[in-house]
Amino acid sequence: MIRGTVKGRVWSSKHIETLPNGALLEVDADGATIVAFDPLGCAIGEEVLITQGSVAAAFFTKHKAPVDALIIGSIDET
Amino acid sequence: MIRGTVKGRVWSSKHIETLPNGALLEVDADGATIVAFDPLGCAIGEEVLITQGSVAAAFFTKHKAPVDALIIGSIDET
Amino acid sequence: MIRGTVKGRVWSSKHIETLPNGALLEVDADGATIVAFDPLGCAIGEEVLITQGSVAAAFFTKHKAPVDALIIGSIDET
Amino acid sequence: MIRGTVKGRVWSSKHIETLPNGALLEVDADGATIVAFDPLGCAIGEEVLITQGSVAAAFFTKHKAPVDALIIGSIDET
Amino acid sequence: MIRGTVKGRVWSSKHIETLPNGALLEVDADGATIVAFDPLGCAIGEEVLITQGSVAAAFFTKHKAPVDALIIGSIDET
Repeated sequence: MIRGTVKGRVWSSKHIETLPNGALLEVDADGATIVAFDPLGCAIGEEVLITQGSVAAAFFTKHKAPVDALIIGSIDET
Repeated sequence: MIRGTVKGRVWSSKHIETLPNGALLEVDADGATIVAFDPLGCAIGEEVLITQGSVAAAFFTKHKAPVDALIIGSIDET
Repeated sequence: MIRGTVKGRVWSSKHIETLPNGALLEVDADGATIVAFDPLGCAIGEEVLITQGSVAAAFFTKHKAPVDALIIGSIDET
Repeated sequence: MIRGTVKGRVWSSKHIETLPNGALLEVDADGATIVAFDPLGCAIGEEVLITQGSVAAAFFTKHKAPVDALIIGSIDET
Repeated sequence: MIRGTVKGRVWSSKHIETLPNGALLEVDADGATIVAFDPLGCAIGEEVLITQGSVAAAFFTKHKAPVDALIIGSIDET
């Protein structure tokens, strides 16, 4: 997994049908920007863990979702 | 997913048989160029979301398509 | 696989349900930081081998785990 | 997919048994060199499209081929 | 696939049970270091071809091996 910081939300009105409803967050990870699906309700500035690839898509069990980046946790502040 | 900007279209008359009919768009994503299959009819200059790897190929359900990059949405202007 | 050095542990109280119980370690690999699941009880400073992607998730056989980075071994000192 | 330019051919007499017969071409893609399986008979200097990962391996249906990069098309000159 | 040069061998006495017996070689590929499973008995200095990801793991058919990098051939000297 990689860790990153939530920078904002992305909206896509025109999308393929199989994109699940839910938040798509822009996450800054070591200078690169990834757009990840967020099932946890994370806020801007939150530190998160992201899993990628087919492992992210496997989270969606009802149908094959075209999601290759998923927020799996929020990192505890220490 | 990554976001990028559509730069143009790529044509390939000589291709393997399993390549689906449809548009192949060149997308600039953080300086790198990706060629993605476009099921949405995006235009040059449009900001798009791309999913990659086997997750992209899973969009094609009739046969195994050799597509590892898929435009899944157009990003709303804000 | 890639090799790296364990730098610390990451805690995530707020996470998706399918994240397995166990240690999530931050590993420095050639300057990049990866967070990997550790089934071996590795310590800070230990040199480890990491496998990534769906190969990492396949380690978990009871349910689909959202883990795309797994420590598979500790490298012997020479 | 990524696009690249064919630079030459690689020969491997000592290889694992499941490597399919056929051309392995060195392709320059944005400065990186990839070795891709070529089912199309491409020539040096030709611009090609490459798909990667398990999507490339899925092209081979008779047995599991250890191929993670496949030329899927030649790009038309414009 | 990528090509690289074998630099040495890695030993891991403490590893997960599903790691197959066999050589793990450090390979330098364009400046990055990858640790790949070697079923061919390659020597230091040898030029090799590496396949990555789930395609590498699929080489192991008896059980799911946590191997995401596999040497599939030695490149002929020319």
